Amino acid sequence: MAEDQVPVHYEDLALLETQFDEVDREILAKQYVLSAPLYAKRQEVVSKIEGFWPLVFEQSPPDVDRYITPNDANIFAKLKSLDVKRFEIPMGPEKIAGDAGDPRSIAIRFEFDENEYFSNSVLEKKFWYRRSKDGWSGLVSEPVKIDWKGEDPTNGLTNAAYAVFQERKKAGDMKKKGFAAYKKLLDLIENNNVDNTSFFAWFGYVSAGPYVSADESAQANKEYKERQDKRSKGEKVESPEPEEVEEEDMMGDDEIHPEGDELAQLIAEDVWPNAIKYFTQAQEMEDMSEMDFEDMSDEDDDEDGPIDLRALVGKGKPKTKPSSNDADEPPKKKQKK
Amino acid sequence: MAEDQVPVHYEDLALLETQFDEVDREILAKQYVLSAPLYAKRQEVVSKIEGFWPLVFEQSPPDVDRYITPNDANIFAKLKSLDVKRFEIPMGPEKIAGDAGDPRSIAIRFEFDENEYFSNSVLEKKFWYRRSKDGWSGLVSEPVKIDWKGEDPTNGLTNAAYAVFQERKKAGDMKKKGFAAYKKLLDLIENNNVDNTSFFAWFGYVSAGPYVSADESAQANKEYKERQDKRSKGEKVESPEPEEVEEEDMMGDDEIHPEGDELAQLIAEDVWPNAIKYFTQAQEMEDMSEMDFEDMSDEDDDEDGPIDLRALVGKGKPKTKPSSNDADEPPKKKQKK
Repeated sequence: MAEDQVPVHYEDLALLETQFDEVDREILAKQYVLSAPLYAKRQEVVSKIEGFWPLVFEQSPPDVDRYITPNDANIFAKLKSLDVKRFEIPMGPEKIAGDAGDPRSIAIRFEFDENEYFSNSVLEKKFWYRRSKDGWSGLVSEPVKIDWKGEDPTNGLTNAAYAVFQERKKAGDMKKKGFAAYKKLLDLIENNNVDNTSFFAWFGYVSAGPYVSADESAQANKEYKERQDKRSKGEKVESPEPEEVEEEDMMGDDEIHPEGDELAQLIAEDVWPNAIKYFTQAQEMEDMSEMDFEDMSDEDDDEDGPIDLRALVGKGKPKTKPSSNDADEPPKKKQKK
Repeated sequence: MAEDQVPVHYEDLALLETQFDEVDREILAKQYVLSAPLYAKRQEVVSKIEGFWPLVFEQSPPDVDRYITPNDANIFAKLKSLDVKRFEIPMGPEKIAGDAGDPRSIAIRFEFDENEYFSNSVLEKKFWYRRSKDGWSGLVSEPVKIDWKGEDPTNGLTNAAYAVFQERKKAGDMKKKGFAAYKKLLDLIENNNVDNTSFFAWFGYVSAGPYVSADESAQANKEYKERQDKRSKGEKVESPEPEEVEEEDMMGDDEIHPEGDELAQLIAEDVWPNAIKYFTQAQEMEDMSEMDFEDMSDEDDDEDGPIDLRALVGKGKPKTKPSSNDADEPPKKKQKK
């Protein structure tokens, strides 16, 4: 289509997309509030099942699994519990405050048994959904320090990212560069074999775009909302010009995890809601390897007793199964938001 | 884990899964009701954009695209409109009636311009989420008759499935076999090259399991609910024994589309909610091929004007994009339920 014949419909479509997005955010918050008591109950039940979370990660979907190296798997064997919170969703009767926070913000909390890898018992990674003044929006995070006891499987990446972030914060300039810790970080990234990066480098992730502070985001959201309100009344409104970005400032150069935000979402929207399914699959894998082949035809015989549950629920990957043979089991949950 | 030490926790997990599922169904219905006015508005806008739906299917996700043969693409070029309804969700102020219907039931309606392929102007495929008396649950459908004008790209599959279904219905036996039309259907399936099957064979799809009638499903849901209520009070309840199934009765033998239910879900949960994104991608592809290379650096310069929208929204596949550079655009919508 030639540029001179762009019809007004595209603006209608853009406005619609932002309205769909509002519904999505509302639904995300609603689902979170409704599910919260069930997740609490699930935590209580799975805390009594030894190896629940290690087995879940063993069966995690390919896009998560590919970040877990064989060495990481040893560390995950020490995972005591996982918790995912959408910490900007108000849990009381108040309505969702649009400016105060975003239902897409996520906190992912790993609790570990005493182990030989690091002395932290908890590693918590928080992601805030923020908007920058020049129009970017997405998840931003802050590096988490890991106190490695012996060899660091991230080869120093995580803590180098932590050091850079702290120095930038102290300087009040989140784009500061050129200082010693920054040069060290770039060296480490350059010499790192991306395909062999430890999952734990993810704890050093910051952003796929700029780092956006809470203040900047609140201001940008306010202005964004004003523009949208005008647009929905049919007014023509200009958006802010994106800042000129120099080539060396392009995102990614000093980022130690290629897709840290996507990995966070996969954990929050797939691993977390489907944990029982992944656990059951892992159990079934174990059962299968212990089972005599002559027993296999009996697999479907007695229904929804505990053993049957494990066999049945485990059928197939949970992501997009539209029908089920599970007697009293709902269809597999899909990826949630 | 050995079978003699199965702890009671597995029953708790199974019960929890059914409770999560109830929340999911409630949320699905809620989202549907909230989004309905936006979808209506979208229909109005896109009806003015020539080639909107053909372009959406041109950019559809791989799991849909792989079912569209080059010949099918010519037919899709005649697609005038698409509509997806969850027709068992009550749209009034009444509460969702659990027994009356299921929010997972889907109607997918294609409207075509006058064309040389078939004389139908509308092809509507309905899927009902149903539960069988022996415990299976999932989407079931009925074959849709297509009145081909010339060569039938499904090689007779769709209408053979239609004939079998009608004869079974007349006989009041949905498992009836051995009659002439049934033998013809099996022959057609056997001689069919699955990798080259037309998308339109999907209109003949019935079920990944048994065909379940509305009456059977209502009764099975009632009994299921009674069992669940007892279980949530801590009672031990046996589930119905699945019927003995003879090998030739196993699903799939007389089914002309391998994953008709999953394809329906992909259209309802990905193509339909993300249609604006797919359309914009298709537009961008066209623009790219028309664009001089020297123009490419200007791509991101002016923000959220109509042309910019098209360029920006089109970045990447919509499915799992956690952040965006779209000035006033929300993050890409993910696969919905």
